[in-house]
Amino acid sequence: MTRFQKQLQFILEVDKTKNIFRQTHLTHRGRNENDAEHAWHMAMMIYLLKEYANEEIDLAKTMMMALIHDIVEIDAGDTYAYDDQGLATQKEREAQAAKRIFGLLPEDQKTEMMALFEEFEAYESAEAKFAHAIDNFQPLLLNDSNDGYDWESHDVSAKRILKRHSLSKLGSNKIGEYSEKLIDENVVKGNLKGE
Amino acid sequence: MTRFQKQLQFILEVDKTKNIFRQTHLTHRGRNENDAEHAWHMAMMIYLLKEYANEEIDLAKTMMMALIHDIVEIDAGDTYAYDDQGLATQKEREAQAAKRIFGLLPEDQKTEMMALFEEFEAYESAEAKFAHAIDNFQPLLLNDSNDGYDWESHDVSAKRILKRHSLSKLGSNKIGEYSEKLIDENVVKGNLKGE
Repeated sequence: MTRFQKQLQFILEVDKTKNIFRQTHLTHRGRNENDAEHAWHMAMMIYLLKEYANEEIDLAKTMMMALIHDIVEIDAGDTYAYDDQGLATQKEREAQAAKRIFGLLPEDQKTEMMALFEEFEAYESAEAKFAHAIDNFQPLLLNDSNDGYDWESHDVSAKRILKRHSLSKLGSNKIGEYSEKLIDENVVKGNLKGE
Repeated sequence: MTRFQKQLQFILEVDKTKNIFRQTHLTHRGRNENDAEHAWHMAMMIYLLKEYANEEIDLAKTMMMALIHDIVEIDAGDTYAYDDQGLATQKEREAQAAKRIFGLLPEDQKTEMMALFEEFEAYESAEAKFAHAIDNFQPLLLNDSNDGYDWESHDVSAKRILKRHSLSKLGSNKIGEYSEKLIDENVVKGNLKGE
């Protein structure tokens, strides 16, 4: 198989990302969002909100990190951010998936994409921290626009949600603080339980 | 309204891109693809296939061009590439939409995004030519994987399709030539009429 054919094989395989549905609903209480749509929104937000990153970031790299960060869910499925059972096995399931899916690419790009995915997961570089801030913020924005619709069917406390979103401050103080403000407002409005 | 609020207003408005459906079907003869999914796929392809661009490109800029190039369809609707009546009024409808939608952003970003959209439309810069090559190639890849399913309900000749895809060579000789090869193969397979 030629280098080009390997690249096209990967590109066709990841089409399946469009059929992995998340807990988040589109604005105006629309249908559930899928992983490709979420990643599209994230990459655009990274470009438009880069001025709020705490540290300087490599823009194309951070955007690509966002575009690929969920494709392991083709094999591993979507794990809800507050599903403890799922979270316990998530790392191992996703590592296997990364090996298979990125393994479709030519060797150099396989190495590059595996490294980019692992960098995101490690949550240490400026790019990974900002990408995580946007990964948290994007569904919060949609959910806030829907008066907390995503939280309705899940027994999640504001405390736990605040804990997750406080990590966004590692990548962007502005976005982390604004997220806390949005969550607090949703408690006041009764969209989310305070305890 | 603060700068940040204007940015968030734009980000929420473009969520509607996820409900604009195209003529292309997902792999395995799935449902119709929407504009956000198409743009996600394009941005990833731009990153992975950049080695085939005829000229050097600014990667983040080309990716962002792909991410935003269809959001005018929120107001203007999707115009099929071979719909002559729709094509006649497309430019004017899309220019109006760009004004309204990018107009939600702070002034500097409105100017930047309008310029990026117009650069794509002008089809002249290295970035625009490569983005167009990918914009043509992505649905062709999906359609080829589906044995020409998208062409079934449209009376389009191979000649017209070849003409459109031959333009891809302006951005990438490799992708343009491979596209022509795919189209020819589909004629031989009987998926597309030769005349």
